[in-house]
Amino acid sequence: MIITLKDGSKKEYSEAKSVIDIAYDISEGLARAACAGEVNGEVVDLRTVLDSDCELNILTAKDEKGLAVLRHTASHVMAQAVQNLYPQAKVAIGPSIDTGFYYDFEHEPFSREDLDAIEKEMKKIIKKGAKIERFTKSREDAIAYFKEKNEPYKVELIEDLPEGEEISFYSQGDWTDLCAGPHLMSVKGVKAFKLLSSSSAYWRGSEKNAMLTRIYGTAYATKDELKEHLEQMEEAKRRDHNKLGREMKIFTTVDVIGQGLPLIMPNGVIMMQELQRWIEDEETKRGYVRTKTPLMAKSDLYKISGHWDHYKDGMFVLGDEENDKEVYALRPMTCPFQYYVYKAEQHSYRDLPIRLGETSTLFRNEDSGEMHGLTRVRQFTISEGHLIVRPDQMVKEFKDCIALAQYCLQVLGVEEDVTYHLSKWDPTNKEKYIGEPEVWEETEGHIRQMLNELNIPFTEDVGEAAFYGPKVDINAKNVYGKEDTMITIQWDALLAEQFDMYYIDENGDKQRPYIIHRTSMGCYERTLAWLIEKYAGMFPTWLCPEQVRVIPISEKFNDYAAKVEAEMKEAGIRCSVDGRSEKMGYKIREARLERVPYMLIVGAKEEEEGKVSVRSRYLGDEGMKDLGEFISFIKEEIKNKTIRKIEVQEEKK
Amino acid sequence: MIITLKDGSKKEYSEAKSVIDIAYDISEGLARAACAGEVNGEVVDLRTVLDSDCELNILTAKDEKGLAVLRHTASHVMAQAVQNLYPQAKVAIGPSIDTGFYYDFEHEPFSREDLDAIEKEMKKIIKKGAKIERFTKSREDAIAYFKEKNEPYKVELIEDLPEGEEISFYSQGDWTDLCAGPHLMSVKGVKAFKLLSSSSAYWRGSEKNAMLTRIYGTAYATKDELKEHLEQMEEAKRRDHNKLGREMKIFTTVDVIGQGLPLIMPNGVIMMQELQRWIEDEETKRGYVRTKTPLMAKSDLYKISGHWDHYKDGMFVLGDEENDKEVYALRPMTCPFQYYVYKAEQHSYRDLPIRLGETSTLFRNEDSGEMHGLTRVRQFTISEGHLIVRPDQMVKEFKDCIALAQYCLQVLGVEEDVTYHLSKWDPTNKEKYIGEPEVWEETEGHIRQMLNELNIPFTEDVGEAAFYGPKVDINAKNVYGKEDTMITIQWDALLAEQFDMYYIDENGDKQRPYIIHRTSMGCYERTLAWLIEKYAGMFPTWLCPEQVRVIPISEKFNDYAAKVEAEMKEAGIRCSVDGRSEKMGYKIREARLERVPYMLIVGAKEEEEGKVSVRSRYLGDEGMKDLGEFISFIKEEIKNKTIRKIEVQEEKK
Repeated sequence: MIITLKDGSKKEYSEAKSVIDIAYDISEGLARAACAGEVNGEVVDLRTVLDSDCELNILTAKDEKGLAVLRHTASHVMAQAVQNLYPQAKVAIGPSIDTGFYYDFEHEPFSREDLDAIEKEMKKIIKKGAKIERFTKSREDAIAYFKEKNEPYKVELIEDLPEGEEISFYSQGDWTDLCAGPHLMSVKGVKAFKLLSSSSAYWRGSEKNAMLTRIYGTAYATKDELKEHLEQMEEAKRRDHNKLGREMKIFTTVDVIGQGLPLIMPNGVIMMQELQRWIEDEETKRGYVRTKTPLMAKSDLYKISGHWDHYKDGMFVLGDEENDKEVYALRPMTCPFQYYVYKAEQHSYRDLPIRLGETSTLFRNEDSGEMHGLTRVRQFTISEGHLIVRPDQMVKEFKDCIALAQYCLQVLGVEEDVTYHLSKWDPTNKEKYIGEPEVWEETEGHIRQMLNELNIPFTEDVGEAAFYGPKVDINAKNVYGKEDTMITIQWDALLAEQFDMYYIDENGDKQRPYIIHRTSMGCYERTLAWLIEKYAGMFPTWLCPEQVRVIPISEKFNDYAAKVEAEMKEAGIRCSVDGRSEKMGYKIREARLERVPYMLIVGAKEEEEGKVSVRSRYLGDEGMKDLGEFISFIKEEIKNKTIRKIEVQEEKK
Repeated sequence: MIITLKDGSKKEYSEAKSVIDIAYDISEGLARAACAGEVNGEVVDLRTVLDSDCELNILTAKDEKGLAVLRHTASHVMAQAVQNLYPQAKVAIGPSIDTGFYYDFEHEPFSREDLDAIEKEMKKIIKKGAKIERFTKSREDAIAYFKEKNEPYKVELIEDLPEGEEISFYSQGDWTDLCAGPHLMSVKGVKAFKLLSSSSAYWRGSEKNAMLTRIYGTAYATKDELKEHLEQMEEAKRRDHNKLGREMKIFTTVDVIGQGLPLIMPNGVIMMQELQRWIEDEETKRGYVRTKTPLMAKSDLYKISGHWDHYKDGMFVLGDEENDKEVYALRPMTCPFQYYVYKAEQHSYRDLPIRLGETSTLFRNEDSGEMHGLTRVRQFTISEGHLIVRPDQMVKEFKDCIALAQYCLQVLGVEEDVTYHLSKWDPTNKEKYIGEPEVWEETEGHIRQMLNELNIPFTEDVGEAAFYGPKVDINAKNVYGKEDTMITIQWDALLAEQFDMYYIDENGDKQRPYIIHRTSMGCYERTLAWLIEKYAGMFPTWLCPEQVRVIPISEKFNDYAAKVEAEMKEAGIRCSVDGRSEKMGYKIREARLERVPYMLIVGAKEEEEGKVSVRSRYLGDEGMKDLGEFISFIKEEIKNKTIRKIEVQEEKK
């Protein structure tokens, strides 16, 4: 047989050979690093014997798929360690996942101390270095085996497999697990791992089943890689908006109110109000007018828009059609409401484009399990809008929408953190869309050309379009690497028909307009979460709930501090005084912890000369300044929405 | 028998006498003006024969109750006229109402021409001057009578009366109606009347019944009074926000969206945004912080607040407790949401008062029939807020809330148009309230004292308190004289207990705070309606959707006009150019009709000298000014929210 390797080179063997033997044949280094093989694109066990021509790629932990095998073996080592220490624990399932691996046990919750003990036991097992061996049993023997071992979850898993199936097992020393594999050749391959947390999880993910205890862990090929990952995780946790946002009193949640319904606290409202006024005024400058349309409507409206048929499960419905004369639903989008504002008057070709903006509240009836902080919510506020344009105005207006989105991203300092996507229809799945293939090709072509002309790098994502047209999605990742759409701009040549929208052309005839569905800054809650994580709470000054804290060096100077505060407030700056009789160092540290960008230290010299000693989170000590001079300086920074670079490290505690 | 008259004088008669005879005995003038009698407080027919001692007041059309009798007779005259002209019309019911009278007929809708013909016929009937006579029949005879006349509604009315009852009739000439009376002595008493409109109405007000046609009319004692009333009605109609607000493109409604769910159009959003930013900033200046809490919550929350038991019918509920794991409801108020913002942190006595404001959207599931324009709606936005205070801070904070409300009314120019009310509990109806009588007496006493100290005239309204405490209501009337509450400030010493809210006092002990529930400017939609009617759309400049219109005297000056517009916009003034090739007079008239406060006329001289000719709705011609000078002038007017008096009358067309 002839084996074609990844680099194109070929190996010829006269007899069947296992993947691991071929790896040894190539080099001992490769064989030692090998985690699995990839034969004609399929990941297989190193033990797999090859007996005919094929393409072979030896996977190591440097390959994603190889690393997954290593992690899967780590989960087996963890399960063995758990059963060594807690023999009464029953095993359920234990796969590798994107960020590491887990295993579910029937056992009471594990404490951090328990996890440490399990890690220690794992190290012992790895040190012993048992070989991992694969073998199979008949279905009946497999069931009998786990019944004898009193492992009911394994029995249930096997019972669900088809009759007559051969069942594969992997054993390491005296510990054996039901497993489809693949696995490393020996537990010694698990060199760098860490158990992360323990939480509860339902057997097979259903709340109808028993509650199990899950242990999450991760593993890497080397200790350095593991260390780097753990540091990244620490940083992510530090920035996680769902933690930091609560600590900073930006939002909270309340059980009796419900999941996915955050309460924005005063600090968060200040930020949202700044964002809202800024974006509303910016849109006004760019020729938008604003609407304020109802948050609910009769089902009649959603029947016209198509949401009643296609999106009813995602909506909150009030009443039901059998018992109530009128059924209402909370709106999941603003489109048809703004269409009716357009339709309230007759428009001529000279009136177009009409750019309708709304700071709009929307509702989505998402599953409880999907709720998360400010990013997965049931009610949110969005800088929504629809441009009603003549076909000949479409390209210019669409480009202007992209420009507005880019302006917003740039002001918020996140323009480097996003990716652009041309979300296209899926021509193999035509029934999901309305309109003709030529229209799709043409409009996608327009968007492609625009993005190219604007020198914006983008990917093309098939099957991601709205049912009525293609769109540009602007995405960003959260601290854990999960990608969300932040801004979207949609090209809609079809819906005006559905709502009988028209304008009167030069000849007095009715014509259908085109519609652009767009956001400028996206959803306020999600943007807030993004900014919290981006800046780890150290926002640009214009967004800070508190912009200046005045710290008198002793209570003697509280009067002067109050005078400074009053002048600040008069100038529209958000300011407070820390007049407590605490030590100055303590008060400074607290202001830093609360992420106030500017501290003004005032004592005898400052009072005498009408000055303030400025300490910032950017440079540290910025020297003594005239009060008026500092006010002009910070007002300018706020007005320009300046993002100052932080040049000092936080002091050690 | 001795008859005691209203002025205290007494008349003695040896035999029974009718009210009208006694009236003649007093004076012929009184007898002619008499509409009815009031015997021991009960309104009776003039024909009623008195046979024992009593107090008697002869009612004329100057008395509200006398006028009602006159109008009731007018409705009979109208019904006779209708059946003279349209013999196939069936009569239903025809009472007097606050503003006049109506009668319902089974007949197709009447046009204005029909109404004119009916009025003419009524005049004929009145001229003939038939006497009105009262007689009775047994129930059986009465039914037989109307069956013969083929009047099914009258038959149904009688059938609903108790068996054995004697049924009263009133006849005028050859026309007879079932009626409890009272009525004038003759149709000649109907001297000044007007038929106003025709609309449809369900028989007995139920949509399950037949649809009838109603004619509204009004009647007064004299032609002068009628004329004055009709002029007031014309003025009211001209100002009616439900008409003018639509004409001015401030709002619209859409059938498929639903009743009571107005869409605020771009002009209305400009006004709302001005109001909102103003009030939010003013509250911030006064030490408020802001929240943004969810618009819905689980039923659990409303069970704690008591709304689930006491207000469920007024709420929009999502899901039902039998079928859904979680039931949600849209909020009818913000209180418990802001309480949870308070509860998210622990507070010491030093932190209080905490003043929480929110620009809050609320929902009330009102009956469809009650919906009206922007004043009776199912969803509205309100400047809501709750102050959490120590008991010793209550009076000062409550006074500050009144001061803020007064400030808002004064800025809006409506401070003279409101009445103040101390809304008290009803001690005869204790089960409607929580808390002890002493607490009620004490808190009502505090509010009474405050209002007196502030020199605010007020009425005391028993039974108008909230269930948890007394309040100050600030009311205003709409153009038709209907009174609405615009602002309310409530004293709540009881609800903190329900939500376990506390603060830590000087000794480290938990104490219950007091709560003030309040609005500063009230509900935005209602305020908008109020301002439209108050100013007949001619708003103070700061609220005008368009503040300046530039009108070039010919197209030659469109460039200069555009330059003027650009400078205006740069200065933050809402401005447009009318560059059409219409005559100047036409363009000025249109700007006036659209209620733009300032027009800037520009031609050769203005362009040459960098000036504008100012024409305002206040003074008319305000002369030629430097562009910069005008900008400073109008910016000042906007900044100060000046209300300029209109000193010129609108030109005749």
